[in-house]
Amino acid sequence: MTAGAAMPVIAMRGAGYYSANTVGAKTAIDKLGDLVAAALAKIPLPGPGLPFSIADYGAADGGTSLDLMRGIAAIVRARRAEGDITITYTDLPHNDFSTLFRLTQGLLGDRSAQPLADAPGLYIFGSGTSFYRQIVPDGTVSFGFSATAMHWLSARPCPIADHVHAVGAAAAEKDRFKAQAMADWQTILLHRARELRPGGRLVLANFCIDPQGRYLGNTGGANMFDTFARHWRDLLAAGRITEAEYRAATFQQFYKSVDEFAAPFRDALSPVSQAGLRLDHVATEVTACPYAEAFRDHGDARRFAADYVPTLRSWSETVFAGALDPARPAAMRAAIVDDFYGAYQAEVARTPEGHAMDYVHCFMEIGKSLG
Amino acid sequence: MTAGAAMPVIAMRGAGYYSANTVGAKTAIDKLGDLVAAALAKIPLPGPGLPFSIADYGAADGGTSLDLMRGIAAIVRARRAEGDITITYTDLPHNDFSTLFRLTQGLLGDRSAQPLADAPGLYIFGSGTSFYRQIVPDGTVSFGFSATAMHWLSARPCPIADHVHAVGAAAAEKDRFKAQAMADWQTILLHRARELRPGGRLVLANFCIDPQGRYLGNTGGANMFDTFARHWRDLLAAGRITEAEYRAATFQQFYKSVDEFAAPFRDALSPVSQAGLRLDHVATEVTACPYAEAFRDHGDARRFAADYVPTLRSWSETVFAGALDPARPAAMRAAIVDDFYGAYQAEVARTPEGHAMDYVHCFMEIGKSLG
Repeated sequence: MTAGAAMPVIAMRGAGYYSANTVGAKTAIDKLGDLVAAALAKIPLPGPGLPFSIADYGAADGGTSLDLMRGIAAIVRARRAEGDITITYTDLPHNDFSTLFRLTQGLLGDRSAQPLADAPGLYIFGSGTSFYRQIVPDGTVSFGFSATAMHWLSARPCPIADHVHAVGAAAAEKDRFKAQAMADWQTILLHRARELRPGGRLVLANFCIDPQGRYLGNTGGANMFDTFARHWRDLLAAGRITEAEYRAATFQQFYKSVDEFAAPFRDALSPVSQAGLRLDHVATEVTACPYAEAFRDHGDARRFAADYVPTLRSWSETVFAGALDPARPAAMRAAIVDDFYGAYQAEVARTPEGHAMDYVHCFMEIGKSLG
Repeated sequence: MTAGAAMPVIAMRGAGYYSANTVGAKTAIDKLGDLVAAALAKIPLPGPGLPFSIADYGAADGGTSLDLMRGIAAIVRARRAEGDITITYTDLPHNDFSTLFRLTQGLLGDRSAQPLADAPGLYIFGSGTSFYRQIVPDGTVSFGFSATAMHWLSARPCPIADHVHAVGAAAAEKDRFKAQAMADWQTILLHRARELRPGGRLVLANFCIDPQGRYLGNTGGANMFDTFARHWRDLLAAGRITEAEYRAATFQQFYKSVDEFAAPFRDALSPVSQAGLRLDHVATEVTACPYAEAFRDHGDARRFAADYVPTLRSWSETVFAGALDPARPAAMRAAIVDDFYGAYQAEVARTPEGHAMDYVHCFMEIGKSLG
């Protein structure tokens, strides 16, 4: 199994599309500023001649974390006037690294700010290696960051027959997804333990199910994944898709609870604890959907629907498009997917209340022991 | 000035296109095996815990150097059973890093060989930073490699009025190109001097004009750049392109002679010498055009033309397409470029003898002093 083959394809629709459509993801990352600053203050500086190395795991085009990275670089530079800083942005091989490099070099996006890549003594790298493998050499990362990436599983344990996401799966399916997620979480942490320098730290913001049972797109109003599942079922009922295509649409994802995130750290004999990692902070955080917030201001349901559903489409489209029989002509597959999101959008335009993709994150600070 | 803005756009036409169309470039790189092995044997190993770091400057999709990189990794591993190895592939931000990561992970190309990325303790990175800037932290590169990349200048000193390349420029134009090339060469070397560890080495294979006056596509038969210039002039004469478009087609390149490559090293007081670099080996090498060689076997002029001209087009197209007035409809610009290469291809099919894109390289080994 290669890392790439095991991972889902996340759709990228041209330069900057991901970041522009994930305003909420950026808002969530920006909330991490204090936690990140406190973590950075505790990290021992590398010896002279060694760079302070930062990793951003699952960075996509780097847009949502760009402001945070500027802040991190400034904090590190303030602690150490001399010495190099590296930032390694990681994602899957098909990620749009060109957009990432252009953004950080100031060739795209906000051209008024100093490009991150122009900071003195700062060097930027990309890695196309999955975070289910070791990405950088042993003991080289001082600070690792990841946002909204580690809910993607390394493999799909089974299709979810009558829903699209583990949050709506039957009990036996959910058990298999949870087992995969817990094994994957250990894999992720053990690789990071090897990569971290002694005293190095991770700050992670992962999608979760919070103590109130909330998760992405399910914070009291319409349940986003149930809405996906219902419109997908409608296509089956209308004879537009086959039973096999209906079953195949399954997000290769799992949202862990706080207890599930914390489990490897609570057992002093677990491989993760034995590798020197400890959980120093854990909390959940809900970030309001910016499109639903804007709708409360402007009150135009059609506009809300037209702004909101493309955001959902940006990260979910490949799941539905990929479930369709490749023997269908491409134009037919495109029409089915267009109709699917069109129906969702029409529903939001008709009955906008309660639709929202609020983010529900688990924020964690993890430290590696000094010795 | 940003590095990206200053550099020419090298056309990439989809996954693996560059490498598949540059068989000759790979053949030239494969000739470097002995020189590289001898250089590697002289490089002091980094201390325990420090990786042996390799850089490939201007790597494109990594395809032409992949076999060499496998060999380098094996040689380093044989010298040091433990310890990590890193390979940093560098190119401009718009480079196709996804293809590079897929190739090195075995997801494209030859699937029978072990993927380079699967070698134990080996970590692969991309950098979208131009080699006219520092790319990695001070003193971290043990071995640097570059093939067929450093003839691209950081800026175009002037258009070449009645030709397309410095090899055919008027004397005053050529002087300006040479001055730019010599300044650029110093810039390249001074950045590499900072990046190299003490005792680290570079092996470079750069396009050149050899002591017999030969250069890429000019080794005794038809002169490739003169042929480009003539067909471009034909479009002007036919009224297909304007005088301004005619002048604008200028390769932002310069082929240095051996003496020009060696000049900074021959002056002990030059910034390059003062930075600790010395030239330990320099030689030129002609690599036969694989398409012209195949033509000698198969004798089919139409087939030769159809195989050969697309190779030229793969790296030259953006120069001609980019010279056309952007106010022209895209379809008109595409038709002009198609006709340009079509005329070249028809000429080769009609009079195939002497057409050949033989590569003429200058091979250099450069060492950084230990102290």
